[in-house]
Amino acid sequence: MSAPTNTPTSAPTNAPTNAPAPGRLMATEIAQQPEVWAGLLGAGQQPITEVARAVRARRPRFVLLAARGTSDHAALYAKYLVETVLGLPAGLASPSSITAYEARMDLRDVLLIGISQSGGSPDLVQTLQAGREQGAITLAVTNNPGSPLAEACEYEVDVAAGPERAVAATKTYTAQLLALHLLIAHLADQPVQETARLPEWGETVLAHGDEVAALAGRYRFADRIVITGRGFSYPTAREAGLKLMETCYVSAQAFSGADLLHGPMALIDRQVPVLTVVPDGRGGAAMAPVVDRLEELGVDQLCVGSPAAVARAGRGIVLPEDVPETLTPLLEILPLQQLALHLAVGRGEDPDAPRGLKKVTGTV
Amino acid sequence: MSAPTNTPTSAPTNAPTNAPAPGRLMATEIAQQPEVWAGLLGAGQQPITEVARAVRARRPRFVLLAARGTSDHAALYAKYLVETVLGLPAGLASPSSITAYEARMDLRDVLLIGISQSGGSPDLVQTLQAGREQGAITLAVTNNPGSPLAEACEYEVDVAAGPERAVAATKTYTAQLLALHLLIAHLADQPVQETARLPEWGETVLAHGDEVAALAGRYRFADRIVITGRGFSYPTAREAGLKLMETCYVSAQAFSGADLLHGPMALIDRQVPVLTVVPDGRGGAAMAPVVDRLEELGVDQLCVGSPAAVARAGRGIVLPEDVPETLTPLLEILPLQQLALHLAVGRGEDPDAPRGLKKVTGTV
Repeated sequence: MSAPTNTPTSAPTNAPTNAPAPGRLMATEIAQQPEVWAGLLGAGQQPITEVARAVRARRPRFVLLAARGTSDHAALYAKYLVETVLGLPAGLASPSSITAYEARMDLRDVLLIGISQSGGSPDLVQTLQAGREQGAITLAVTNNPGSPLAEACEYEVDVAAGPERAVAATKTYTAQLLALHLLIAHLADQPVQETARLPEWGETVLAHGDEVAALAGRYRFADRIVITGRGFSYPTAREAGLKLMETCYVSAQAFSGADLLHGPMALIDRQVPVLTVVPDGRGGAAMAPVVDRLEELGVDQLCVGSPAAVARAGRGIVLPEDVPETLTPLLEILPLQQLALHLAVGRGEDPDAPRGLKKVTGTV
Repeated sequence: MSAPTNTPTSAPTNAPTNAPAPGRLMATEIAQQPEVWAGLLGAGQQPITEVARAVRARRPRFVLLAARGTSDHAALYAKYLVETVLGLPAGLASPSSITAYEARMDLRDVLLIGISQSGGSPDLVQTLQAGREQGAITLAVTNNPGSPLAEACEYEVDVAAGPERAVAATKTYTAQLLALHLLIAHLADQPVQETARLPEWGETVLAHGDEVAALAGRYRFADRIVITGRGFSYPTAREAGLKLMETCYVSAQAFSGADLLHGPMALIDRQVPVLTVVPDGRGGAAMAPVVDRLEELGVDQLCVGSPAAVARAGRGIVLPEDVPETLTPLLEILPLQQLALHLAVGRGEDPDAPRGLKKVTGTV
């Protein structure tokens, strides 16, 4: 403002010297995750226990999860937990059934969980309001206590991730996973002490950041990337795909390993790198036929998973051992968030300012 | 076999003169669809009515649908029908919860529907067997009466599409849609007479085949294609994406219009054509903000839908008017099946012999 407007300066107008580095917000929030988890496992846990106790007393028989975008991947994770830990059937709600078609459903005995970082998406608020009128037990999982979504519901869980400023959600995703893990364990009246080591495991994984940055160079000119995992790792594949799409504008398609073998395998050739998520456990074990097929085709792989799986792929990031499979999704996504960040920056993009996106999306 | 092996001939070895034309099987089966529907609406309907009556008497309160690949898109269509017509909550089952994690669920009052062309996928058979043991009412929807899936279930619906020889499913997909439409209408004790005109509408849409063939040329060199629709048209977008992937090896990503605005919109630019499915009705109306955004970005569009939507997109295939929205998915997919066929052939591929695929996939 103090320089005369008609005096040229030597600084290029697009790169003021005090500009923040591209991806600075995203990098900061990726690094905060172990600390966020520690907070949720500390002071954040008691309120979740109380909500779980109140909901359990109402004896839900079916669970529906409603969400969009990144939160929809947390919903998918919760669906597996509800089925395998709580032993109840579960489904992902279709908001448009309620918002566009005004479906009237008998939702008695249904626990309807709405998941949203901001708690402000109008279609979710409308879905939870209508669900409550139709007899559902309603619960909001948000990073924004007192949000419209929380107001619409009988119960509320705060994922307590602190303000998220990057457009690409990172810390709120894993905070949602952990909050849902705690909620469902308490709903099932199961112990949750295995979560105590999560922050330490998270730091261990994040410490591979330089390796991830080096690996990102390999995909600088990839047009398409396929990501695949099964069971609890399928939400990881979906979320990694979304991160790559919204920050790098690469065509990143996620498939469950089983679905991949049912058709989309046809589109994979040696020009399409495949990111596999193959941790120890049953989901990773179920990936065996997928990995076999990728090897037969000579496909370029990068693996996030067990030491054996990473060794077999030839490159990747190894996860800590002895992590319960239900907690692995919190760790698997970390190097894939880092990969999206480094790949975006390496392509000359700023992942903190993705083109055409804003933080809250107002679909109805 | 009769020519001496060391005598060159003028015919190129890869194109014997009596070879079938590429895509002949797929083209034949696409054309058969109105006839298949007429059969299902005739002799095929009474058995479905009887199954629906028996299931209705058991008063299910929640519906789970289990399927893979193309059948999973029929399951998604059925989910919308269950929610909006039958008024019950519904979810898509995760086969891996049962097959990989051996989840034990309380499935009393749950109607579990397994959908599979062949009725032979081992993971689906195992899912329905386990579901039945856990208290579910089990129903198989297949094109193969007496298949292992049908044997595993208490009830069976035959989609009666006749043998499907092409690897890319076409007629069995729309036969599944129609069988599920009839089943759910009868479960809801609603009239179904509007289906009578379906074969005529189908012929009307298929008659645009030459236009589709001409439009296919536009995408000869497209690396990526995005397909989007909402509500009842979302399964159409998903199925069209799968057809394009498995026959043309193009990266074809399908998004619900709402999800597209939540992140993947970032990967769309003028080099990425977008296929929109915008029929008359509430799903089409809910696409308005998506189409607005695509126009702002100057994105190349092709629309299957209402006359107004096609005119706005600048190119596409118009659907017949006065079709009930719940039946539109049977018609929307027809030009998109034709597009996959013509695009594959135009790229020198044979959609009847997609690389790396076989008809029954044996994931467990």
